[in-house]
Amino acid sequence: MQLANASREQLQQWEQALSAEYNAIKAEGLNLDLTRGKPSAEQLSLSDALDGILQHNYITDSGIDTRNYGGLEGTPEARALGEQLMGVPAAQIMAGGNSSLTLMYQLMTTAFFFGLEGADSAWNKEEGIKFLCPVPGYDRHFSICEQLGIEMVNIPMTSNGPDMDAAEALIKADSSIKGMWCVPKYSNPTGVVYSKDVVKRIANLAKIAGKGFRVFWDNAYAIHDLSENAPQLASIWEATKAAGTTDSVLQFASTSKITHAGAGVAFLAASDANLNGFKKVLGIQTIGPDKINQLRHAKFFAVPGSLNAHMQKHAEIIKPRFESVLKHLEEAFGDNALGQWESADGGYFISFDTQEGLAKKVVALAGQAGVKLTPAGATFPYGKDPQDSNIRIAPTVPSVEQVDAAMKVFVLCVKLASVQKALAA
Amino acid sequence: MQLANASREQLQQWEQALSAEYNAIKAEGLNLDLTRGKPSAEQLSLSDALDGILQHNYITDSGIDTRNYGGLEGTPEARALGEQLMGVPAAQIMAGGNSSLTLMYQLMTTAFFFGLEGADSAWNKEEGIKFLCPVPGYDRHFSICEQLGIEMVNIPMTSNGPDMDAAEALIKADSSIKGMWCVPKYSNPTGVVYSKDVVKRIANLAKIAGKGFRVFWDNAYAIHDLSENAPQLASIWEATKAAGTTDSVLQFASTSKITHAGAGVAFLAASDANLNGFKKVLGIQTIGPDKINQLRHAKFFAVPGSLNAHMQKHAEIIKPRFESVLKHLEEAFGDNALGQWESADGGYFISFDTQEGLAKKVVALAGQAGVKLTPAGATFPYGKDPQDSNIRIAPTVPSVEQVDAAMKVFVLCVKLASVQKALAA
Repeated sequence: MQLANASREQLQQWEQALSAEYNAIKAEGLNLDLTRGKPSAEQLSLSDALDGILQHNYITDSGIDTRNYGGLEGTPEARALGEQLMGVPAAQIMAGGNSSLTLMYQLMTTAFFFGLEGADSAWNKEEGIKFLCPVPGYDRHFSICEQLGIEMVNIPMTSNGPDMDAAEALIKADSSIKGMWCVPKYSNPTGVVYSKDVVKRIANLAKIAGKGFRVFWDNAYAIHDLSENAPQLASIWEATKAAGTTDSVLQFASTSKITHAGAGVAFLAASDANLNGFKKVLGIQTIGPDKINQLRHAKFFAVPGSLNAHMQKHAEIIKPRFESVLKHLEEAFGDNALGQWESADGGYFISFDTQEGLAKKVVALAGQAGVKLTPAGATFPYGKDPQDSNIRIAPTVPSVEQVDAAMKVFVLCVKLASVQKALAA
Repeated sequence: MQLANASREQLQQWEQALSAEYNAIKAEGLNLDLTRGKPSAEQLSLSDALDGILQHNYITDSGIDTRNYGGLEGTPEARALGEQLMGVPAAQIMAGGNSSLTLMYQLMTTAFFFGLEGADSAWNKEEGIKFLCPVPGYDRHFSICEQLGIEMVNIPMTSNGPDMDAAEALIKADSSIKGMWCVPKYSNPTGVVYSKDVVKRIANLAKIAGKGFRVFWDNAYAIHDLSENAPQLASIWEATKAAGTTDSVLQFASTSKITHAGAGVAFLAASDANLNGFKKVLGIQTIGPDKINQLRHAKFFAVPGSLNAHMQKHAEIIKPRFESVLKHLEEAFGDNALGQWESADGGYFISFDTQEGLAKKVVALAGQAGVKLTPAGATFPYGKDPQDSNIRIAPTVPSVEQVDAAMKVFVLCVKLASVQKALAA
């Protein structure tokens, strides 16, 4: 379907045919959902052996009774698991509770209210501080900034990561920019893996930024590959070591999309100065994380190679769903300008851009036809997509058949909205 | 030993005898510890059946897959356990993660930075806000206020709870007092249970306080009785309902000293307005608590009466330790004015008051003789005991024999310090 060269008559014919098809599907009363960026029950079941894995032995190899209080930085065994996951030495890692989002929030509020380098370094001592937000991005990152009144500045995502020319220019010009959100591998939602050059340039941002600059490096999909030839993410830890900027990056990861989504172990990797600054503040709000759950996870992945083998099982479940989404998009839009997307090799999302001004309409059309999509705009700060074009597709929870059925409706809605736009032009 | 009527010669004789005894004990090289307010390994083992209790069935009776994300307020089953524990309807209860301290911190920071009743109600909109702190009290409560810059105002503890005449007078005179810390049952560290009259007066404080007043009701030892005729704590929930002040009290509890200290379930009980205000802020920092651990706990206490039966096992372990402490205190100081204490029927601490100005010295003497005591002052805001007299004794972790040995040293140090004080007068 090439709208650009189509006659008005042709457009009207298409519109009629697509409307008829749409109405027929609407009458079917579908109830499908592509909104949920979480594991399916089948994926969760891969980790059910966590229950009972301790066989009532709650003592770690290092001799810690995990049942009692204490241990702010997590058990050595859990921190070693963090090293496997994050590729950063365990000495730089804290193992926490069930949520990396909570860890990010805690680091953000520490930096904002209390300061990671003492009280004078608190961001809220300055008026009007800002954060760079590669867009589209993760709504829960944006909500934290919004709650704290940190102004968010959009920068475009490219197929190599954030537009670093834009990022560097903004940071050079404005010392009130205190940090940047990053999902460096299988970025939420575009699926992009940051290139080696982008990683290096991010590691060097602190050199041109104002004081207290911190990159929040949310490596949520660090090992969540769908193919064996998965793209490698360069080590930001090594890059900051080379640049002498280790204090400028805070790394996060968790087992939430590895074991049980709501009951995993979250990790922070950071420089000694950041860990110490954080622990001073964290020690006021907790006596320590759930070390029993940390021990369960350490035991579950005790055998070398078991973590990767486990992730391959996830990939086997997720891959057909991603393939279904990509097949429908390729078939419908591979040869025209109705939509754009990246072909993700991992993560949980596929990000689709309609022609300008159609995302809300497509989401509404799909909704009326029984296919729930993430609200348009959700992937942008303040819920505002300036182009009204981005839609996040989350295919992991439905069955392959459901994904297939939902995507048929999706591409139909995109076509219909696009043709109607062309007619209205 | 009656110091008041003793001659100087008598005092010198006592001092020589006590010093000799002290030096002999010092030479023994003891290594004992009465500082740790946490369960012993024997107590923790009472709950070891939590591991494996799910038999790989992670679905609640209410149909929730506890493995996945979501459920900010906790599972219905966990909230029902909270009702058992707190005596407040489950509808008013949120079940959280592993730490009630974290919940208190989250409520405190919500009220302080963001407001429980919308942004305008945030405490930090006012300068110089204050909190009432019954003393001696719990150091971790005080640390939260200190971190936020909330000025702490001491009010005395009596054997019925906080001195309410003092509390009411202060609150009436000063609308910048925004709240009050309370450990209403087996108060940390005095072991006192608030009387029915005190509970009622606390429920009525909001009527004389400035706007946004909140009592932090840390019911850490709600069911942690040592005797069958345990004193009853009146319901603050009912009292606030009667007074029309349900928004003024935030109640906290946890299973930390019921099951596994570091891996339990924490609870908040509050009015609908407070729960809604809190959830708005909490929803930014987490997707939900560890529901699997909540399910473990709900199953562990599923049989009616099992919670109480479980607490009796704790009491059987703890009681001999408390008895040993009380026996030594009674024998040494029952007939004189060298020290004062309450006879606690539960909780984790016995609080001892030396004569004025001797707490630091006693702690130092005991430390040099191999008995570690909580630093003097720790039970007061800013670590400053104006009388330098309070010492917190935590006897749960050592064996009964160790408690006995440590208490021999303790009473000796109190006697020695007291005699030396009398000699110096």
